[in-house]
Amino acid sequence: MSDKSSNQMWGGRFAAGPDAIMEAINASIGFDKRMAAQDIAGSRAHAAMLAAQGIVTPSDAEAMREGLLTVLSEIETGQFVFSTALEDIHMNVEARLKEIIGEPAGRLHTGRSRNDQVATDFRLWVRDQLDTASSGLTALIRALLAQAEAGADWVMPGFTHLQTAQPVTWGHHMMAYVEMFARDLSRVEDARRRMNESPLGAAALAGTSFPIDRDMTAKALGFDRPMANSLDAVSDRDFALEFLSVASISAMHLSRMAEELVIWSSAQFRFVTLSDRFSTGSSIMPQKKNPDAAELIRAKIGRIFGANVALMTVMKGLPLAYSKDMQEDKEQVFDAADNWMLALAAMEGMVKDMSANTQVLEAAASAGFSTATDLADWLVRELDLPFRDAHHVTGSLVAMAEQKGCDLPDLSLADMQSVHDGISEAVFDVLGVHNSVASRTSFGGTAPVRVREQIARWKETLG
Amino acid sequence: MSDKSSNQMWGGRFAAGPDAIMEAINASIGFDKRMAAQDIAGSRAHAAMLAAQGIVTPSDAEAMREGLLTVLSEIETGQFVFSTALEDIHMNVEARLKEIIGEPAGRLHTGRSRNDQVATDFRLWVRDQLDTASSGLTALIRALLAQAEAGADWVMPGFTHLQTAQPVTWGHHMMAYVEMFARDLSRVEDARRRMNESPLGAAALAGTSFPIDRDMTAKALGFDRPMANSLDAVSDRDFALEFLSVASISAMHLSRMAEELVIWSSAQFRFVTLSDRFSTGSSIMPQKKNPDAAELIRAKIGRIFGANVALMTVMKGLPLAYSKDMQEDKEQVFDAADNWMLALAAMEGMVKDMSANTQVLEAAASAGFSTATDLADWLVRELDLPFRDAHHVTGSLVAMAEQKGCDLPDLSLADMQSVHDGISEAVFDVLGVHNSVASRTSFGGTAPVRVREQIARWKETLG
Amino acid sequence: MSDKSSNQMWGGRFAAGPDAIMEAINASIGFDKRMAAQDIAGSRAHAAMLAAQGIVTPSDAEAMREGLLTVLSEIETGQFVFSTALEDIHMNVEARLKEIIGEPAGRLHTGRSRNDQVATDFRLWVRDQLDTASSGLTALIRALLAQAEAGADWVMPGFTHLQTAQPVTWGHHMMAYVEMFARDLSRVEDARRRMNESPLGAAALAGTSFPIDRDMTAKALGFDRPMANSLDAVSDRDFALEFLSVASISAMHLSRMAEELVIWSSAQFRFVTLSDRFSTGSSIMPQKKNPDAAELIRAKIGRIFGANVALMTVMKGLPLAYSKDMQEDKEQVFDAADNWMLALAAMEGMVKDMSANTQVLEAAASAGFSTATDLADWLVRELDLPFRDAHHVTGSLVAMAEQKGCDLPDLSLADMQSVHDGISEAVFDVLGVHNSVASRTSFGGTAPVRVREQIARWKETLG
Amino acid sequence: MSDKSSNQMWGGRFAAGPDAIMEAINASIGFDKRMAAQDIAGSRAHAAMLAAQGIVTPSDAEAMREGLLTVLSEIETGQFVFSTALEDIHMNVEARLKEIIGEPAGRLHTGRSRNDQVATDFRLWVRDQLDTASSGLTALIRALLAQAEAGADWVMPGFTHLQTAQPVTWGHHMMAYVEMFARDLSRVEDARRRMNESPLGAAALAGTSFPIDRDMTAKALGFDRPMANSLDAVSDRDFALEFLSVASISAMHLSRMAEELVIWSSAQFRFVTLSDRFSTGSSIMPQKKNPDAAELIRAKIGRIFGANVALMTVMKGLPLAYSKDMQEDKEQVFDAADNWMLALAAMEGMVKDMSANTQVLEAAASAGFSTATDLADWLVRELDLPFRDAHHVTGSLVAMAEQKGCDLPDLSLADMQSVHDGISEAVFDVLGVHNSVASRTSFGGTAPVRVREQIARWKETLG
Repeated sequence: MSDKSSNQMWGGRFAAGPDAIMEAINASIGFDKRMAAQDIAGSRAHAAMLAAQGIVTPSDAEAMREGLLTVLSEIETGQFVFSTALEDIHMNVEARLKEIIGEPAGRLHTGRSRNDQVATDFRLWVRDQLDTASSGLTALIRALLAQAEAGADWVMPGFTHLQTAQPVTWGHHMMAYVEMFARDLSRVEDARRRMNESPLGAAALAGTSFPIDRDMTAKALGFDRPMANSLDAVSDRDFALEFLSVASISAMHLSRMAEELVIWSSAQFRFVTLSDRFSTGSSIMPQKKNPDAAELIRAKIGRIFGANVALMTVMKGLPLAYSKDMQEDKEQVFDAADNWMLALAAMEGMVKDMSANTQVLEAAASAGFSTATDLADWLVRELDLPFRDAHHVTGSLVAMAEQKGCDLPDLSLADMQSVHDGISEAVFDVLGVHNSVASRTSFGGTAPVRVREQIARWKETLG
Repeated sequence: MSDKSSNQMWGGRFAAGPDAIMEAINASIGFDKRMAAQDIAGSRAHAAMLAAQGIVTPSDAEAMREGLLTVLSEIETGQFVFSTALEDIHMNVEARLKEIIGEPAGRLHTGRSRNDQVATDFRLWVRDQLDTASSGLTALIRALLAQAEAGADWVMPGFTHLQTAQPVTWGHHMMAYVEMFARDLSRVEDARRRMNESPLGAAALAGTSFPIDRDMTAKALGFDRPMANSLDAVSDRDFALEFLSVASISAMHLSRMAEELVIWSSAQFRFVTLSDRFSTGSSIMPQKKNPDAAELIRAKIGRIFGANVALMTVMKGLPLAYSKDMQEDKEQVFDAADNWMLALAAMEGMVKDMSANTQVLEAAASAGFSTATDLADWLVRELDLPFRDAHHVTGSLVAMAEQKGCDLPDLSLADMQSVHDGISEAVFDVLGVHNSVASRTSFGGTAPVRVREQIARWKETLG
Repeated sequence: MSDKSSNQMWGGRFAAGPDAIMEAINASIGFDKRMAAQDIAGSRAHAAMLAAQGIVTPSDAEAMREGLLTVLSEIETGQFVFSTALEDIHMNVEARLKEIIGEPAGRLHTGRSRNDQVATDFRLWVRDQLDTASSGLTALIRALLAQAEAGADWVMPGFTHLQTAQPVTWGHHMMAYVEMFARDLSRVEDARRRMNESPLGAAALAGTSFPIDRDMTAKALGFDRPMANSLDAVSDRDFALEFLSVASISAMHLSRMAEELVIWSSAQFRFVTLSDRFSTGSSIMPQKKNPDAAELIRAKIGRIFGANVALMTVMKGLPLAYSKDMQEDKEQVFDAADNWMLALAAMEGMVKDMSANTQVLEAAASAGFSTATDLADWLVRELDLPFRDAHHVTGSLVAMAEQKGCDLPDLSLADMQSVHDGISEAVFDVLGVHNSVASRTSFGGTAPVRVREQIARWKETLG
Repeated sequence: MSDKSSNQMWGGRFAAGPDAIMEAINASIGFDKRMAAQDIAGSRAHAAMLAAQGIVTPSDAEAMREGLLTVLSEIETGQFVFSTALEDIHMNVEARLKEIIGEPAGRLHTGRSRNDQVATDFRLWVRDQLDTASSGLTALIRALLAQAEAGADWVMPGFTHLQTAQPVTWGHHMMAYVEMFARDLSRVEDARRRMNESPLGAAALAGTSFPIDRDMTAKALGFDRPMANSLDAVSDRDFALEFLSVASISAMHLSRMAEELVIWSSAQFRFVTLSDRFSTGSSIMPQKKNPDAAELIRAKIGRIFGANVALMTVMKGLPLAYSKDMQEDKEQVFDAADNWMLALAAMEGMVKDMSANTQVLEAAASAGFSTATDLADWLVRELDLPFRDAHHVTGSLVAMAEQKGCDLPDLSLADMQSVHDGISEAVFDVLGVHNSVASRTSFGGTAPVRVREQIARWKETLG
């Protein structure tokens, strides 16, 4: 059964004929032509299987194969004329195939339907995007690793609440993003594995009585196996929703890094200089470099997560099996995929190009008594003070330094001993920012030695 | 200051030059060319004002006017060649204007910036859509009024929980949607009134030292007044978010009606027959009519509300004034507007074309002891039983009818009196569905007389 | 008919009885008890009307009134024992009323149903919140006006892309937020006006045959009129969705201002000092003040807009009239309202308490050639250069200053004339930041004189 | 460093003191007390590690262990008095511990911070919920398998567009949901595996200089390993977002099934009878059974996906590392988790209890020429007609039957041969619905033999 059959091709009963509004709301060819290659790949796999199973003759199958390759070539070279009256990519390809090879074209639809056909095409398209995302994420991770390696021991402020909290290393900060994008990569892999099943052969919704071989078409299309329930195969859009969920979390990571780049390139922070390549300027303020690419990357989470909301809303409460509502799935995924890939590429480019202003970073890290925690930890470790008491002593010393208008390392030993007489000369070893970061050697800590271990691990993992 | 100045036009400093990724993420001409007419209208108003204020000469202003009309004509006739290197519609128009009129083109940008220019263009575009939505909603309301008038006394089941609750009239049901879409209309009007202020003249963000007359440009563009704060004028996208909020609630109403049409046209319900015009069929099951348009309308809330989420996410946490993130506003609003208008038109068409299956509706309304409430109310009203006691008696009578396999009006008076001896022959007046609906004459009730009053009121309101 | 009738109260047929899961998913008393006062107000209005229309006796009505006041008092004093078995606030109140006044309690439900009762209660609750929001917004606007008045001529950087663009005044920046929150106020007023209609008397869904007076109950409850369609009255949740939309846009404004406060209180910006009252500190870094309140305000848009998504998703595709899905409306609105009010109050407190670091602001405004636009405008205005040529001259002068390591006002007249010989001594009048802001006197511009006009206008408007 | 240190406990500097608004917006104890058990488990693991590493003495560690068990017991038995002034669960537990064991309590915080502590607690809590979701999904799948087994060969209509398309089996339809919920299960497992890493020991954000053993605490808490970057460990909320994404997709599946149950239990469909246990009734219409539980399950996607939107919005654009905004994570996840578990349990109960009305199902499956596709396939298979020609013949036969007012099997062989003379007696074998479903034996098809294979496979998989 061809459930989504168009009025135009098979009609007869429809006296009225669709008018412009119906065509505008109903036709999908305007966007689903992006799946032309996938559609033709699916048809080729189906045709080969029909012949192997003796459902069509070898010569018909050969005609289909040749004809489909011709159609593909016409599309790829821009010669193909898409018709809105033919509604969608499936009907456009099929109609053209019929023009080229005649009668055998009619046998191609044996044992399948537009419902499993569109599900197959769309899965193949999404799978390609998952692979593209893998590449994009990997390239971005490599760019971050390069930055981390260059600055494994550059000191910068570690913020909480956008207030200086403790010194950290540039490499450590870059590696935090490596962890995030690596989780995105892991989610991409899980999503790909889960979705890599073939709907082809589910037919309209119930399977078919033709002796088709779904394993063969699945294998030909690179799927791990055929889907196990034909109703589910034509009703399921989990793979699209999971794609959008994974993309949304990744876009959130991108938005966080982009926010940092915008703030860091302000005149007040000057932590980084972005390349001209990813900035725009002002005709009259030549020193002004607007971080346009970073801002646009920051914004991309909007449309990507908006697409997730859109499709989730569409799928809410839909009874089985196929409903036409589901035609709204593609534009959302297309737009989200395009923008995710673009944002990944732009971020990779920005990370590669940007230069850290190391002196500004170190000066900022040294300000604001950022090693107060190191002092408190020293008091606990060396003088065996309880944690809360050590905090009290530290607070008093910071207050003293603040009053004197100096920083912690500038206090004299006598000053220090006036607050707690157990303090010795050794304390000064922990008050500089370089000593501070070097001391944080707990697993996953900011010490350069730990950061370099993580860089090495990731380089090995990525190969 | 031309804050969004492109590298290409005014550059000099940017050694690197934008590469393909930057161009892809940064350029907006691919979509903002839809605002060409608004952009040129804004420029014409600005040029006329500059001349009136003596900021440019009358002959320069005349050249601008003529040149802008030429550009508009080129765009409308499809001769205009849009350039991605020129980034956006503003730069495309300006560059072409310079080619046509030369030096005076450079004076057009006096006292304005791309920041207020884009805000003006986009407001004008959204305002047009609000007007289009008004028309679409009004047309849909008229179609519903016609259905309500035809079937003011057709009886159908009123559902709660999709279970028959009480009989209502077809007209009453149609008028419920009139109320919903009329609230949409009211929200459209409020949104239009609130947003109808001109950002033009806010310049980059701070206003200008040129003696411009913002009232004059506001008036020329049909705005009620200039916006009162230049920082706000270039930072504000409330008008777009309010448009999306209003559209989303309206799309929700459309989704509810569409859901009813899908259910009502199932073989099990058969409450309505949709026209061929808004259905698709099956090549081999000619009686099958898929309610494609209704399903697609039901789905439209997804992308419209998704756009709302997208833009709200973009605007979250943006510092003043203009940030490039805001460039992501247009595609969301364009797509939502197109789909809202399309859904309104398709629903109007479906409502006009659909025919109620009155016999099926009445039979369904009569089944399931749907007048049990009428019986209980009669017991309260005529026999002065407390409400809860009346319910108890009614429950017993319904149980008796169920046991006998008949409906309430089929019970004999003796049967009834066996449960409560105060029941008289008069009770049978309230047990038929026509009597039931006729009796519900409270204001806003389902009685045909009330429904006709509401129809008359709305027809008068709409004029 | 009591459509949502509970098994427990009126049962008989339900052999099985609800188990813990059903009770957990079905009962709403856990949250809808927040509407107790509204529920009792609605019942009092209904009782008085029933008596006035002769549907119940005066003495029954008096018993109801007294009994309801007793129940209200029990609830307000915490003596009332809420029962989950009685499902919701309506049944809890009714059951207690029956205990207190006996038989007449049974007559209170005449001519109404739980469907219109809950719609009435919820509207009243939301209306109260709209009034609270009005107060909260007004108080916040007053706090901003006070800041604007104090700093009408304090100079600070105006940012685009978080890059210094032009000098603006502190007062102007504060007034941008006044415009935003004033639009919120205007949306609150529109929403209140639109939703202020009474569902009471719509009964289950079809109206009633009792001679009720819906105008009387509407008036007693402060509604402008009864709703005009009983099906719509029990199916509509537009008022809740519009509340959430309005709150979401307002929360977006709050998130923008909160973001600015977080950035402005960083060590790098130091534009403002927040009060201890709205910050938290570190036990060992006493100078560290975390802007916790600002961060939490920034985050509130999440749950408020999340509630909007939640309810929109619930309402998508619901057939008429009442469906139990709609019970999910209240918790979303309750949580969003609580958090909106809290965020408004916290922001008002922060704005009142914060102090601008005027020297830091002015120094930042003066850096980065921020008056380059003023110079270009001067060239256009005084030397009649075309806009683009003026930009070119300005760019050269900025480049010269950058090379010399000085700012624009530090260039000599000879330096300037070497780029364009028409430049005269008068140019120096526009290069200082105070002159710059003072010159931007276009309507809505940043000039102190304009800012003070707007402050005066708003103070008069608010009264 | 204790970054989130409260004013109350460690203050001194804060002259003003937090007022009611700040306390209301800042304190989290109102909700984070749900993590008490996780908090204490984390502290116990930390204490044991501190002793093993020689950072605290064995006797101090023993005091901590005993004290923490006492606190846990007090909380579990409801004796614990939570204090809002102590802000959160961590400070509440710590303050009480100090009261019980005195000075050693101060040493428990050595080498950790509230930032890694809250991340640890929350991960443990979410991990527990993933395990609960696994159980809930498995139980629901078992209930569906039981329904599928009972009705592996019951025939019902397979719908597309809510129009009868082809006959399918009840078992096949149930198994479609098994596939969906099994994918949810698979997503739960992936999410658990990915998130099962320990943040403990990341300290405030940079790691620590104390010689802690993060592997030991990770192992003690059942984590697979410590997280590899301390900045990421305190900044990351991916695990919460992935939980919400997974829950949202699952809630979408639940909404689809719930929608079907609502439609199927309408008077028009009567496909299933829901149990009294999961329905509510009307006091006066005893036959009326409202599918309240199904409606509420259908609605749950609203708040679950709303929570996803809320947290994604919160996380958008947050710079590293910890920001207070992130405190908004818990309530969203708590509410979503509670409602997901409840909806799973309610759906399991409904599926177990519901009974299919097999006669109604079979009659519906037989109506509407539902075997037209089987006829067309027969023509292709037996007469070797091209697919499109077979459709044409079938269309003519259906039209003939429609005209005669009969169904396809009721046409005579002569009637059939008048349309295509190759048709033989054997055609009648495929026209009955039982033959139809039996013939669809392609892998994943609706044939009972295939359905039973899938049931067996799943029973074996679940063990």
